[in-house]
Amino acid sequence: MANTAKGTVFYKEKAYSKINEYLLDNKHSKIFILVDSNTHEHCLPAFLPKINTNTAIEIIEIEAGEPHKNLDTCMGVWEALSDLEGDRKSLLINLGGGVVTDLGGFVASTFKRGIKYINVPTTLLSMVDASVGGKTGVDLGNLKNQIGVIANSEMVLVDSDYLATLPTEEMRSGLAEILKHGLIANEDYWNKVGKLSDLTLNDLDDIIRVSIDIKAKVVAEDPFENGLRKTLNYGHTLGHAIESYCLTHQEKQTLLHGEAVAIGIILATYISKELKNFPKDKLEGITKRIIELYGKVDFSQKDIEKIIDLMKFDKKNEAGIINFVLLKDIGAPEIDCQVPNELIFNAFEFYKTA
Amino acid sequence: MANTAKGTVFYKEKAYSKINEYLLDNKHSKIFILVDSNTHEHCLPAFLPKINTNTAIEIIEIEAGEPHKNLDTCMGVWEALSDLEGDRKSLLINLGGGVVTDLGGFVASTFKRGIKYINVPTTLLSMVDASVGGKTGVDLGNLKNQIGVIANSEMVLVDSDYLATLPTEEMRSGLAEILKHGLIANEDYWNKVGKLSDLTLNDLDDIIRVSIDIKAKVVAEDPFENGLRKTLNYGHTLGHAIESYCLTHQEKQTLLHGEAVAIGIILATYISKELKNFPKDKLEGITKRIIELYGKVDFSQKDIEKIIDLMKFDKKNEAGIINFVLLKDIGAPEIDCQVPNELIFNAFEFYKTA
Repeated sequence: MANTAKGTVFYKEKAYSKINEYLLDNKHSKIFILVDSNTHEHCLPAFLPKINTNTAIEIIEIEAGEPHKNLDTCMGVWEALSDLEGDRKSLLINLGGGVVTDLGGFVASTFKRGIKYINVPTTLLSMVDASVGGKTGVDLGNLKNQIGVIANSEMVLVDSDYLATLPTEEMRSGLAEILKHGLIANEDYWNKVGKLSDLTLNDLDDIIRVSIDIKAKVVAEDPFENGLRKTLNYGHTLGHAIESYCLTHQEKQTLLHGEAVAIGIILATYISKELKNFPKDKLEGITKRIIELYGKVDFSQKDIEKIIDLMKFDKKNEAGIINFVLLKDIGAPEIDCQVPNELIFNAFEFYKTA
Repeated sequence: MANTAKGTVFYKEKAYSKINEYLLDNKHSKIFILVDSNTHEHCLPAFLPKINTNTAIEIIEIEAGEPHKNLDTCMGVWEALSDLEGDRKSLLINLGGGVVTDLGGFVASTFKRGIKYINVPTTLLSMVDASVGGKTGVDLGNLKNQIGVIANSEMVLVDSDYLATLPTEEMRSGLAEILKHGLIANEDYWNKVGKLSDLTLNDLDDIIRVSIDIKAKVVAEDPFENGLRKTLNYGHTLGHAIESYCLTHQEKQTLLHGEAVAIGIILATYISKELKNFPKDKLEGITKRIIELYGKVDFSQKDIEKIIDLMKFDKKNEAGIINFVLLKDIGAPEIDCQVPNELIFNAFEFYKTA
């Protein structure tokens, strides 16, 4: 059981008894469940029978996928909440991946100046990353998570059974955050998750709990990202820019969040070796493992220039300076590191020839 | 000097020395000033020379008026902040009326999950009402303030000199909130402001301070509107619905916020007499005074039905029940009062024949 700043994470069967207790103890005027087209089909039929309540339930569906994580989609959900007579005592349950939990958390926190919400993540990525820590938000054009607030859910329900229908690439995308948790916080955990040959659900239950505990501990110490919490952005400064770039350039293959972060991790670890003496053998092990899992993506010189340009919109920047998280070693992160552009080009070159 | 939950209200020359102190003590990467087309022309030229800073200043202009207090306008401001390389250390100064301060506060509180902001209200309404108390937000379609957050500004600067160029109807609109403050909190103050024959700037300085103090005291005791703060909604349950209705029906005259609230005050005071034994002679005095100041608006039976229908979107409602603030006497408000529709029709009839 991991405590976040406000809500608490519950797992498996206990999660359903906890939510039912919560629904009984709190009189909601109405319960709204936000789903996307995938979770409507694959997860809602499993979720609904486990919920015991006399309160009316309404389902709101949004389109699936990162391109819909925007203010237009928010508008649709706000209007649906309004049309269905949602009020300040309504509850929103976000049943879905990171797009549903991030967008749903933002919509709830701003509807009538804030209603309560619960996250039920259904992808590996949203279980280990997006649904804990209170970050909510949507993209602005191709810039990720530019609009949002920090607002905690009432509770988070984690049930790995929802992963049974998840496509392999989505599992892989979530794994990148798990790998990151190992790299920034715990070498033993990295050694375990770095070796996973295939992701079976049995392994996963334990792994998910450890990952959530790592993240929740960091967030509890620094909820507003003034220091320690920035370490969770390892691999994300370049990862976000790569993800944004590929999203808006149709000739490039679209990368899932974790697929872009996996590349960002290799690049940041190379830079860590150059600037922070991160051990060379570990860099090689990490690179080999990530390329085995994720394959490689081609970037031209022009691509790289544009990706570097996109980094200036990173939320962690201040006064035009791009701040990286780097590693002195596995489990030893350092925040607010400035990196010359030349080194970023070298990192891409390292990735290309690895 | 009134303390809000976070920021502090400063007046006249002291306000400028305080903001300059604040700008010196806090290193902002950039200062953005949000204006509308009116305040760009009439207020910015007076404001800018009083600000001493070496930090770069950028001006962002939005269109003036309530119809632009929406998410489209927010999008424009978010994009401008992004294009002009705003970051988490940027500061937004909202220089304008309620639309600028409400929308600007929301945009700031959600840009990159929240940057700091300062309010410089330039209308009587925003001085006494919109810029204190942390309510930020925009309209959703014709529904007022449906999307927003509670987030306090760093400070509020009140300088009545900005009122010199304000049209009479805007002054009248602000006066309605001042009248309301008298009615819910202080009979002596009501007797003073209820008698104002004309609003000269000299009278106003004192009146504005008392009104802000009344509001700030209420907000400090109940920042999240669980109880006492609801009293500030006196006249607003019907007032908001009337304002929304007139805004979206082109055949009706458009009412400013305060003009609609003034009607709402008469209606709520009539209902108070019927349900709470509010003194009949005071009802008549209030009604006479408000009609002298604001004139009368015609409402057909069909208008009234639609206005009642719109009230169901009021944010103070819970589980479909419309909650009114009523008065037992001047200075003695009661929250969460349920009012039968019939009585609302009677109140409109009273207003019509008054």
